[in-house]
Amino acid sequence: TEVRFTTPSDIDMDLFGSGRLDQNGLVFRQNFLIRSYEVVADGTSSLETLMNHLQEASINHGKSLGLVGEGFGATPGMSKKNLMWVVKRTQVVVDRYPTWGDAVQVQGWFHMSGRNGLRRDSLFRDSKTGETLARASSLYVLVNKQTRQLSKMPEEVRLELEPYFLDSNSIAEEDSRKLQEPGENETDFVRAGFTTRWNDLDANQHVNNVKYVGWILESAPVKIMESHEVSAMTLEYKRECGKDYLLQSLTTVSRNSVGNLAVIKCQHLLGLEDGEEILRGRTHARCLVPAVEMQEQE
Amino acid sequence: TEVRFTTPSDIDMDLFGSGRLDQNGLVFRQNFLIRSYEVVADGTSSLETLMNHLQEASINHGKSLGLVGEGFGATPGMSKKNLMWVVKRTQVVVDRYPTWGDAVQVQGWFHMSGRNGLRRDSLFRDSKTGETLARASSLYVLVNKQTRQLSKMPEEVRLELEPYFLDSNSIAEEDSRKLQEPGENETDFVRAGFTTRWNDLDANQHVNNVKYVGWILESAPVKIMESHEVSAMTLEYKRECGKDYLLQSLTTVSRNSVGNLAVIKCQHLLGLEDGEEILRGRTHARCLVPAVEMQEQE
Repeated sequence: TEVRFTTPSDIDMDLFGSGRLDQNGLVFRQNFLIRSYEVVADGTSSLETLMNHLQEASINHGKSLGLVGEGFGATPGMSKKNLMWVVKRTQVVVDRYPTWGDAVQVQGWFHMSGRNGLRRDSLFRDSKTGETLARASSLYVLVNKQTRQLSKMPEEVRLELEPYFLDSNSIAEEDSRKLQEPGENETDFVRAGFTTRWNDLDANQHVNNVKYVGWILESAPVKIMESHEVSAMTLEYKRECGKDYLLQSLTTVSRNSVGNLAVIKCQHLLGLEDGEEILRGRTHARCLVPAVEMQEQE
Repeated sequence: TEVRFTTPSDIDMDLFGSGRLDQNGLVFRQNFLIRSYEVVADGTSSLETLMNHLQEASINHGKSLGLVGEGFGATPGMSKKNLMWVVKRTQVVVDRYPTWGDAVQVQGWFHMSGRNGLRRDSLFRDSKTGETLARASSLYVLVNKQTRQLSKMPEEVRLELEPYFLDSNSIAEEDSRKLQEPGENETDFVRAGFTTRWNDLDANQHVNNVKYVGWILESAPVKIMESHEVSAMTLEYKRECGKDYLLQSLTTVSRNSVGNLAVIKCQHLLGLEDGEEILRGRTHARCLVPAVEMQEQE
């Protein structure tokens, strides 16, 4: 099945509302106008803004399907067995960041991933032209609410979800390479410890996943962040995090990247001061300055 | 003239778009749906979210009037004389914070303020019921772009703006009490210095005014912020701020407030390390915990 692009003129009053189901309930669409406070100094949307829109659309998707609870919610079979969804991994690839005033349509749908995982794929498209701006894919696994242990997907739950699965290829090549410990071949950048605060928490009393994006980018060298934009990011969530946790954020820049400023590859580690991991990540950043100017600067 | 409340059913496709002029072009309305990432741990919208919506609506208001440039833009007469608007002071009073999923209508209009200032008043209303949630008022003054000196309002500019003035009383009692230096009668709370970063800047290369709100609240005691919500805030902007500035944020809590936890009064100072002031502020915060529970906690 193709995920259709629907121009805004086809969409009724919900143009910039909380989204709606389409294509027989298989695809969820929500439109976002990029606002003045969602862009950074160069006028383009920040990566956090894209991640916020992704999160908002996935929660509204779940609500539209009648799933209730944290994240995009539980089926009746999940509630019976005391199961919840936990995001294990999120990948996002950005071809072009929208700018202030642009309308962006986020389309999302579900697949199975292996026998026990659920994948939610998303496309970010320019609402006027249909151009694909970004792609995202998140892997969800089932966890027992009491024991916090991973659970297989019960047959009952699979049958409940099956009507919502879109029969299409995944849009993201799964980046299943293991995220590594920072090795010898890298230059390190650390941002000293900081403490999670009450206003970092979402309505579920956990640190909102999007906060992590800001924190890991904060430990990247400013010179890189000013001249580059993140073109791809993979995040692997290791544990939840509440308030008053003392965290440290470590970024390593691949040595191959030094001297080759066109694409910079970074690895990120966000952990507690005792070493326990909260999150691992990998980003690719592409240079915003044309090659000629770069040489002139040298 | 009354500022009319228009229910969403009267509004066309622009329901949650970038707003539009109404009442003969005198009142600008923009609707916002409160999103999952715009609320704090208790599910209510953060103060920063309200300020973001206020900023977005005021910029779109200016654009709708054909004013171009920074903030809500310049008239042709201003451009000729090299003048720009600078926000001098913002007051906001919040009666009730909206929660996730609520639709909020922000209505804004202009007045003269004295002979040289421009005031923009705003009402935040529940889009369904029309209930007033919050009121805001910002004072703008004219500044010469080159000299950065305050300017009187040229007659030409006053005549250009006059058609946009709404003849109504100001909704905010002007809080013109001088914001004081922290005195002996207060308890101090300081947050150590922090540096402004490239992603604190807006598209005009200045620190976005809304960032200040987060920073001054960060220096307030966490215990207060968890049990109280800001009910009123006045900010006085002293100078612009770019990136790589080393700032410190000082909050003093009025001693009268200690022991009377129902309403807490704070004063805020955000400055450079050499003492130069960026911003002064005053907040009132009301207790979220019912008085009975408070006593039980003691």
